[in-house]
Amino acid sequence: MSAAPSSYELTKLAGSLASFCFASRPVIAKYFRQNITIEGKADASPVTKADKEAEAAIRAMIAQDYPDHQIVGEEEGGVASGLCDWVIDPIDGTRAFICGKPTFGTLIALVDHHVPIAGVIDMPMMDEMYIGVKGQGATCNGVAIHTSAHTDLAQVRLASTAPEALSEAALSKFQALAERCLTASWGGDCYNYALLAAGHIDLVIEHQLASHDIMALVPVIEEAGGIVTDWDGKPVRLGQTGSLIAAANEALHEQALNAMQR
Amino acid sequence: MSAAPSSYELTKLAGSLASFCFASRPVIAKYFRQNITIEGKADASPVTKADKEAEAAIRAMIAQDYPDHQIVGEEEGGVASGLCDWVIDPIDGTRAFICGKPTFGTLIALVDHHVPIAGVIDMPMMDEMYIGVKGQGATCNGVAIHTSAHTDLAQVRLASTAPEALSEAALSKFQALAERCLTASWGGDCYNYALLAAGHIDLVIEHQLASHDIMALVPVIEEAGGIVTDWDGKPVRLGQTGSLIAAANEALHEQALNAMQR
Repeated sequence: MSAAPSSYELTKLAGSLASFCFASRPVIAKYFRQNITIEGKADASPVTKADKEAEAAIRAMIAQDYPDHQIVGEEEGGVASGLCDWVIDPIDGTRAFICGKPTFGTLIALVDHHVPIAGVIDMPMMDEMYIGVKGQGATCNGVAIHTSAHTDLAQVRLASTAPEALSEAALSKFQALAERCLTASWGGDCYNYALLAAGHIDLVIEHQLASHDIMALVPVIEEAGGIVTDWDGKPVRLGQTGSLIAAANEALHEQALNAMQR
Repeated sequence: MSAAPSSYELTKLAGSLASFCFASRPVIAKYFRQNITIEGKADASPVTKADKEAEAAIRAMIAQDYPDHQIVGEEEGGVASGLCDWVIDPIDGTRAFICGKPTFGTLIALVDHHVPIAGVIDMPMMDEMYIGVKGQGATCNGVAIHTSAHTDLAQVRLASTAPEALSEAALSKFQALAERCLTASWGGDCYNYALLAAGHIDLVIEHQLASHDIMALVPVIEEAGGIVTDWDGKPVRLGQTGSLIAAANEALHEQALNAMQR
């Protein structure tokens, strides 16, 4: 790798992602299950000072380690360069966070020319850190993880966060799929994708996601052996918003997309 | 207290409940996130050997400590005496359990003449044990807990496990309430009630519950300062199934029931 601006070394990215999360964890833990003020946001999803301070802590770390890269965060915004961009969602699952549920997570991705190549799904209160880097595999707390080998919908553990995030048409597709699966579970936010990467969930289906909800998931799941696309089967890129399907393997991905069309 | 059959001492019940959970925890932990067989049940909810072995472990402990009491469990069944009955749900949230989510729990209640007077909501993978005994207060891991003082629906953190457990009419009541609350969160099973007892959630609304889902929640929530009834505002008793509303306090309970009528 050259030392030119916007460069990075793949082998160092897992360590970088972990160090960013170790900076945000104490900020988040300080406010968890405390009686903190909830602000409304334009999109009606709640935000707290935990979200803001956690993003600031991560931004400071990135700016120090990768001064030539751009940063785009859910709270402070930012404009992607299209070269090397870090994408942050300090608390994915703020609703869970303010209900005292430890199932929220921190998402950080490195996106190279709009393609996510490294990501972390950090679960601060669960002490579980899921990291994936292109070509380097995926890990949870440093131990290699792999998606499940289930290839039959009848074995599938399906998850999605909230029915109200699905339009009527999307809910009907979800239900067509859920009917054919072993079980379906609500709630979970980014934790569903981490559990898919680790082999405990087989399919995650969501709608109306933002780019900062999506980018970090992709390297974790792909490096664990899974596949992530939109509901048209297209790869996900920076700037993309909307539908997402994550599957443990290609066979399930294809069956799930077919089942959703019926 | 007399030494007659079916007797108990209130001051010893918290210790008994804790000892039962310390017997079931290792059984459950052994199977969590392992690739175990899922059996279908008549009601289409999944069951595993973790459910069965955990209930057996709890039954053995109760039989030893309270040989004259009856036991009713989700897995093995049993008939209540109407005097002193223990009611067990070894894994509440089996769907979460088989998806590798640590948000399932163990519920054990002592019911005296159909009135739940002691209960535990144990979260084995979270290491959080919520216990309530009539007149003795409620605790989490031995530390006193209290429900929130929010009395305005606009401050309310509302939770419910799954929309498909709500009939069309019930979902419409839920939505009428959710529109007036600060936030609503899906998933969680019995953990929602534990978090309500500890002051992090303000309202939990569910439908189509079984008696073993309900009994243990009541003493934990009431002793923490909350209120639990069915959707008609009536107290819950052994044998009851169906709707449940748990509120942090009476003011919220009344406002929520009113909001659901509109």
